[in-house]
Amino acid sequence: MAFVGKKFPNISVDVTDKTGITKKINILETAQKENKKVLLFWYPKDFTFVCPTELHAFQSAMADFEKRNTLVIGASCDTPEVHFAWLNTPKNNGGIQGVTYPIIADSNRNLSSQLGILDITNERYDDETGNVMVDGDNVTYRATYLIDEEGTVFHESVNHMPLGRNVAEFVRLIDAYTHVQKNGEVCPANWQEGSSA
Amino acid sequence: MAFVGKKFPNISVDVTDKTGITKKINILETAQKENKKVLLFWYPKDFTFVCPTELHAFQSAMADFEKRNTLVIGASCDTPEVHFAWLNTPKNNGGIQGVTYPIIADSNRNLSSQLGILDITNERYDDETGNVMVDGDNVTYRATYLIDEEGTVFHESVNHMPLGRNVAEFVRLIDAYTHVQKNGEVCPANWQEGSSA
Amino acid sequence: MAFVGKKFPNISVDVTDKTGITKKINILETAQKENKKVLLFWYPKDFTFVCPTELHAFQSAMADFEKRNTLVIGASCDTPEVHFAWLNTPKNNGGIQGVTYPIIADSNRNLSSQLGILDITNERYDDETGNVMVDGDNVTYRATYLIDEEGTVFHESVNHMPLGRNVAEFVRLIDAYTHVQKNGEVCPANWQEGSSA
Amino acid sequence: MAFVGKKFPNISVDVTDKTGITKKINILETAQKENKKVLLFWYPKDFTFVCPTELHAFQSAMADFEKRNTLVIGASCDTPEVHFAWLNTPKNNGGIQGVTYPIIADSNRNLSSQLGILDITNERYDDETGNVMVDGDNVTYRATYLIDEEGTVFHESVNHMPLGRNVAEFVRLIDAYTHVQKNGEVCPANWQEGSSA
Amino acid sequence: MAFVGKKFPNISVDVTDKTGITKKINILETAQKENKKVLLFWYPKDFTFVCPTELHAFQSAMADFEKRNTLVIGASCDTPEVHFAWLNTPKNNGGIQGVTYPIIADSNRNLSSQLGILDITNERYDDETGNVMVDGDNVTYRATYLIDEEGTVFHESVNHMPLGRNVAEFVRLIDAYTHVQKNGEVCPANWQEGSSA
Amino acid sequence: MAFVGKKFPNISVDVTDKTGITKKINILETAQKENKKVLLFWYPKDFTFVCPTELHAFQSAMADFEKRNTLVIGASCDTPEVHFAWLNTPKNNGGIQGVTYPIIADSNRNLSSQLGILDITNERYDDETGNVMVDGDNVTYRATYLIDEEGTVFHESVNHMPLGRNVAEFVRLIDAYTHVQKNGEVCPANWQEGSSA
Amino acid sequence: MAFVGKKFPNISVDVTDKTGITKKINILETAQKENKKVLLFWYPKDFTFVCPTELHAFQSAMADFEKRNTLVIGASCDTPEVHFAWLNTPKNNGGIQGVTYPIIADSNRNLSSQLGILDITNERYDDETGNVMVDGDNVTYRATYLIDEEGTVFHESVNHMPLGRNVAEFVRLIDAYTHVQKNGEVCPANWQEGSSA
Amino acid sequence: MAFVGKKFPNISVDVTDKTGITKKINILETAQKENKKVLLFWYPKDFTFVCPTELHAFQSAMADFEKRNTLVIGASCDTPEVHFAWLNTPKNNGGIQGVTYPIIADSNRNLSSQLGILDITNERYDDETGNVMVDGDNVTYRATYLIDEEGTVFHESVNHMPLGRNVAEFVRLIDAYTHVQKNGEVCPANWQEGSSA
Amino acid sequence: MAFVGKKFPNISVDVTDKTGITKKINILETAQKENKKVLLFWYPKDFTFVCPTELHAFQSAMADFEKRNTLVIGASCDTPEVHFAWLNTPKNNGGIQGVTYPIIADSNRNLSSQLGILDITNERYDDETGNVMVDGDNVTYRATYLIDEEGTVFHESVNHMPLGRNVAEFVRLIDAYTHVQKNGEVCPANWQEGSSA
Amino acid sequence: MAFVGKKFPNISVDVTDKTGITKKINILETAQKENKKVLLFWYPKDFTFVCPTELHAFQSAMADFEKRNTLVIGASCDTPEVHFAWLNTPKNNGGIQGVTYPIIADSNRNLSSQLGILDITNERYDDETGNVMVDGDNVTYRATYLIDEEGTVFHESVNHMPLGRNVAEFVRLIDAYTHVQKNGEVCPANWQEGSSA
Repeated sequence: MAFVGKKFPNISVDVTDKTGITKKINILETAQKENKKVLLFWYPKDFTFVCPTELHAFQSAMADFEKRNTLVIGASCDTPEVHFAWLNTPKNNGGIQGVTYPIIADSNRNLSSQLGILDITNERYDDETGNVMVDGDNVTYRATYLIDEEGTVFHESVNHMPLGRNVAEFVRLIDAYTHVQKNGEVCPANWQEGSSA
Repeated sequence: MAFVGKKFPNISVDVTDKTGITKKINILETAQKENKKVLLFWYPKDFTFVCPTELHAFQSAMADFEKRNTLVIGASCDTPEVHFAWLNTPKNNGGIQGVTYPIIADSNRNLSSQLGILDITNERYDDETGNVMVDGDNVTYRATYLIDEEGTVFHESVNHMPLGRNVAEFVRLIDAYTHVQKNGEVCPANWQEGSSA
Repeated sequence: MAFVGKKFPNISVDVTDKTGITKKINILETAQKENKKVLLFWYPKDFTFVCPTELHAFQSAMADFEKRNTLVIGASCDTPEVHFAWLNTPKNNGGIQGVTYPIIADSNRNLSSQLGILDITNERYDDETGNVMVDGDNVTYRATYLIDEEGTVFHESVNHMPLGRNVAEFVRLIDAYTHVQKNGEVCPANWQEGSSA
Repeated sequence: MAFVGKKFPNISVDVTDKTGITKKINILETAQKENKKVLLFWYPKDFTFVCPTELHAFQSAMADFEKRNTLVIGASCDTPEVHFAWLNTPKNNGGIQGVTYPIIADSNRNLSSQLGILDITNERYDDETGNVMVDGDNVTYRATYLIDEEGTVFHESVNHMPLGRNVAEFVRLIDAYTHVQKNGEVCPANWQEGSSA
Repeated sequence: MAFVGKKFPNISVDVTDKTGITKKINILETAQKENKKVLLFWYPKDFTFVCPTELHAFQSAMADFEKRNTLVIGASCDTPEVHFAWLNTPKNNGGIQGVTYPIIADSNRNLSSQLGILDITNERYDDETGNVMVDGDNVTYRATYLIDEEGTVFHESVNHMPLGRNVAEFVRLIDAYTHVQKNGEVCPANWQEGSSA
Repeated sequence: MAFVGKKFPNISVDVTDKTGITKKINILETAQKENKKVLLFWYPKDFTFVCPTELHAFQSAMADFEKRNTLVIGASCDTPEVHFAWLNTPKNNGGIQGVTYPIIADSNRNLSSQLGILDITNERYDDETGNVMVDGDNVTYRATYLIDEEGTVFHESVNHMPLGRNVAEFVRLIDAYTHVQKNGEVCPANWQEGSSA
Repeated sequence: MAFVGKKFPNISVDVTDKTGITKKINILETAQKENKKVLLFWYPKDFTFVCPTELHAFQSAMADFEKRNTLVIGASCDTPEVHFAWLNTPKNNGGIQGVTYPIIADSNRNLSSQLGILDITNERYDDETGNVMVDGDNVTYRATYLIDEEGTVFHESVNHMPLGRNVAEFVRLIDAYTHVQKNGEVCPANWQEGSSA
Repeated sequence: MAFVGKKFPNISVDVTDKTGITKKINILETAQKENKKVLLFWYPKDFTFVCPTELHAFQSAMADFEKRNTLVIGASCDTPEVHFAWLNTPKNNGGIQGVTYPIIADSNRNLSSQLGILDITNERYDDETGNVMVDGDNVTYRATYLIDEEGTVFHESVNHMPLGRNVAEFVRLIDAYTHVQKNGEVCPANWQEGSSA
Repeated sequence: MAFVGKKFPNISVDVTDKTGITKKINILETAQKENKKVLLFWYPKDFTFVCPTELHAFQSAMADFEKRNTLVIGASCDTPEVHFAWLNTPKNNGGIQGVTYPIIADSNRNLSSQLGILDITNERYDDETGNVMVDGDNVTYRATYLIDEEGTVFHESVNHMPLGRNVAEFVRLIDAYTHVQKNGEVCPANWQEGSSA
Repeated sequence: MAFVGKKFPNISVDVTDKTGITKKINILETAQKENKKVLLFWYPKDFTFVCPTELHAFQSAMADFEKRNTLVIGASCDTPEVHFAWLNTPKNNGGIQGVTYPIIADSNRNLSSQLGILDITNERYDDETGNVMVDGDNVTYRATYLIDEEGTVFHESVNHMPLGRNVAEFVRLIDAYTHVQKNGEVCPANWQEGSSA
């Protein structure tokens, strides 16, 4: 079932950043309390090639998101310790040094399993042991969620593993949604801020 | 559960076009037999304001999709008769005259319910009558699926009702995915065809 | 189970008319509050050939129904937007311009599924996806309900898809039922108002 | 669920006529084997006032049905013995002497319960005794079925207890349906044989 | 399970008599309130040959039952209208004109199904339709119940369809039971009132 | 459910007689193989007062039953040993010395529980022990069955504990049933052999 | 499960004796209220050969049990009437005249089924009739229970049908248990009262 | 349920003896193959006071059992190692040195749980852990089984923990049963070999 | 599931020692009330070869454990009586004379089944008897638990039957854990008390 | 349930090493095919402080394990990419550069969930979403398994998170087990290779 038009899941997850401190964050409550939009993007794994490119692209656009009252949050199923190690690895070594937004460490998959974006397939219940065996690495696809100030999801998308995202498109979607919030108009296709609807 | 990384549902649905003839189409089989990519986009209802804008935008980009070996298919839960009436309504009367791609008429919701993109919520079973009552119009969100030549979904996204789509972004995603198919490389964020990865 | 002798289902559905405004209507409550009889007739789809003929026939008899204290309501599973487009299509273009009674837009099938008049058959539960697949267009047969001032159904009939209705017969049934209401007599076959029972 | 568009139930029931002989009849098979249409009408009880009026009305129109290749069959839940007694009661004593078509004696309710036209309501399972108690006389409403030569129902209607039927309307429906069978056209509202569609 | 030694079922059923008026009767309450014994006898169908003979035999013995403080009640599954027609049919036409005791019209089988005396066998549940099909006419065997002033059954018997009852035997059983009620003695076989036990 | 019109239960039970030898008897098979009618009568307990009276009464009528091709069989839930002791107890000591017909010893209640004539009521399942506790002595009422040469029950009756049976009535029922077997006529009430039906 | 070490079942059963009066007895309560031990012995059937021998043996040892504060109670599944007849049958006729202790009449098997000592085996549920059929006579084995003043079972034994009991052994067990009660010592094998443990 | 009259459980258990060698024994098969009777006696625990007394008593009577073709087998839930240690402990140290018959080591309770002679009570399922907790030491009562050459149990008894057994009584039971086997007679109470039955 | 990081099971079990007195001990409560660590070690069986070696090794290290505020408790599934016999058997006879710490007697397996360290495998439910049969001796592996002053398990290990334990390793683990308790540091591998972490 | 005495789970998992290549390994098959012992040790997370200490300690002892025919395998729930990054981080930066044994990347928890060593607790099923929420990081405790050449586990242990392991102890356990394999002797406590058992 699509999350669009519904509230984002109401649960707390671990999040860390370049300070190396790990806290709990509840995205639904954060959007509502801080009265901000949230862009949440998931990537499969730390310490891979395509992922840092995306993470740096979101970093480069931080000013664009801030002036649109939008928090940027990254997320993967790695641990806070691994996030911290990666945050301390220079960009030219494949690291993400310089990233300032927080990154969720969903190692227990509480949030990603609820969103249904894990790459596991073919669950098999083993009668003998009572365990469940799966295919796949149990990491997330490249899923992105845009959430408004009331915690409602207004866009969700999932890209296959090897396919990077277009940061500018998310800026456009935020602008278009903000336009609807302000003007109550329905926003036509290919709409750009400043153009006449 | 995300459809990305999995085969598109293997079912046949009614589809019509400007000829007014209604046929059956199985998107999975079509992609595989014709060895083409498919862009399938859903909109909520015929004869509304924002929808025709999107439908015209896809029509304008038909050449771009064709040269990328990509079929464009529209879809809503209206009947073939309604699609045909709308296809015969001039653009300046709010119609979609001029649209040449086929439009699915999923009036029995066989496909949209399987994709999980209907706006119904709060299902209530009525013990007395044995019927199920729902909230919502039972029409679809603005969902988009990119499917490759093997029938595998490589992108899916859902926009909230009032939020139009950006046709150029889908062209970019097709190019990026094609690049990966050809070069086996992972495609970084914000990638544009012709730029060096 | 027949609805005759029972109250009409107590639920609200969307209804629109030539003004293009969509409201909620609860037929049971409307009959009781306005102390009127109701003739509710269902047709399969907007923008088809036989249907407008029936809709125009009911329109032509509006004076007959009004002087018998009877509301006429049309109904199909199309959306309010499609009803409005059809209401604005001239009669000689296959439209129903000129129709003044309201038309129910049961796009979520809340009412038609409760009445059991949808043409879907052969429901199949898909174990793998948990979805239900059906045969048929999920639109209604030509069903007609006559409801009295207390909301009780006193006649129901269903015609196969290609078979039009006889408006005069419904007038006769209303007259006969009204005769029984006034005179407490049982009304013999082929009874006509003014004839001696 | 409506029976229109489906085959009539495939079961055998007792039927008798003025000869007093009781046989089994399977309406579905009869229509198919004899290649005839069937008009089946149900009435609540033998030896009541309004019922014989209807039964005589159908008798008077026998020639009309015969020339339309249509069998007329009456039906109630009384026994063959009671039907026979009523068939031997003169018309002016409230009897139906003179009726020549067969009358079904559905005393075990095998057919009427399958059609869902019994007036019983409010079934209550008695835990102590394991029996089911009902409200109502367990007799049928005034239901009418038109069945074609393949055994498919093309019209069904149910009138409340005190409301007699219009024999001419059934003749009209048979003619309209026959017109569709012959001409493949959809038959508009208020259609009369001989008028141009 | 035998009803002997238990209270008669506590339910109300329709009863009529030669006046043609239909009322409700609860046999258990009637016995207790009027402080009378009750003889309740069931026969299969109105308007058959053997049945009127039995009904006349009970009529002839009415004085014997009255002086023993015993109500006589007949019963079948025919409707009150049919009972009334039969009560108005002269004896030499196979009718029961002259019968003065009331006759239960158990057309909904509420009482006869609880007593387990219907001739239906071989119940088959039809999975497809959810209906139950039976063999047999769904009418009663020749069952007789003797009920005392507290509503307790002290004799029950069932005869096969073609086998008439002996009214004198029921008089004997009532006398024997009354003897036990008065004298507290156990009544030996073949006992006759006035003989020494 | 009545056993009338159905085959007698097809099971074997212990039976003994004045020889003291215990055998198995299957009443259904016996009737069929020996081509005889059977009168089976149950009494509550050996060594009580009213019972021997009944047993002697059946003994006195043995010639009447024999010339009507009818086997007489007594039955209670006592053991064969107790039957034998009672059969050897002189009549004036409360015994049944002189009885020549066999007596069933249904100590395991296989047959009486299937006939539903045991006086137990109010079964209570004890969760702790998994046992069933009952009220009542678990002995039979005074039930009588008349069975024809094909094993079909044509009369059944149950008398309350203190109420003796009338042997002559069973002779009458056998004669009446035999009359029907021979003449195919339905036998009217109060019928006596030799009278004109 | 063994009953040793647990309380005897807390239920009331019918008991009679040479006076012919039938009462209720609850062995658990009797032991506790009268502060006595109880020896309860079961035998299969009245009026058999080996059983009276045992019953006389227990009678002969009554003085031994009385001076050990122990009640002796016999038990079978026969009725009180049969017990009374046997108690009045002279010893040389195979009776138990002279027996003074009470004998339980467990005709409804409430106690013996709870003790699990009935000889029935191979229970078969008959789906058609809903009855349970068993093999065996549904009488008890030769089971013996020794119960102390608190109602706790301290010995239980079961002998196969043809195998008589040794009364002296039960006297020994009572003495040994009493010795333990008084001295708190554990009682060695083959212990005899008066010997040094 | 009593085991008397049924086959002894058909399972293999560990058994050891003074040689210290542990083997498997199946008592049912042993009795049948060696054509011998078996006396199996259970005691609660090794290394207690009362138990060795019983074990020595059975040892002293070995000649009596052997000449009656009867195997003697002891049993407890201790391990073979503990049995061996006890078999090597001198009698005056509380050991059972000198015992020559085998002793079952039912440490996994496979046999004792099937016989229902463990002292555990009050089983409680712990929902949280999925374990079962019990009261009691999970050791056996003093149960004794006499089994014939076909493996059928002909005596079973259970003594409360502190109550020793009488070896002579088992010799008597074996003699009595053997007498029945030879003579087909039923053996009266208190019977002794050599006395006239 | 590992017990490490969780509280030790909260149940009471029997424990004895060289005094031969048997008490109840709840290890969780003991650790908490006495504010001590606990080393609990399980061995398979009393009176075997390898086990006493381990038991003597723990005894030799008692001073080391005491100065570390740690209670040592042994455990097996033998009874207290067997433990006592073994504690009184001299070391050179294979006994454990000289052992001063208490030994749990888990004969009912309440604790060992909850810990999951019994050697039973292959549980088979016997439908006929309702019993569970197992493979294995139902004794424990060589499992060891280290529990802190709050009752939390901080180490658990299981050795296969023939494999003895290293007492010094448990001393090292206690020291390392105590170091963490005091210093809040994480303790590196191969850490020894006094070395710098 | 302990794994000791049972085969190691038969499943394949991802494993990587300093070459950065990821393969599948099935430990059970590896032990059997290569005829080697396996030491498998789990640690919670890459890029933490205590873990690298343990990993270096196992590396230092590689020669000891090799000469004992034992494979060393590390394991955590991090991905191969993270393992590779850590393997390339110098020791003095908290990395594990220099480690040559392979490290399992159980990111889908297929193996660790089967071993029951994940730190998740308190699973809560969310009825609304159908998801399971857990407490804990879903990483493993410090568990160690010693597996023999047939794939049988002969030692398992789990240390709480902050508690490092003693490599020498595992060497001792391997030596002791090898001694038993060669000599068939049971190995006493504190045993050291070369000492006399």
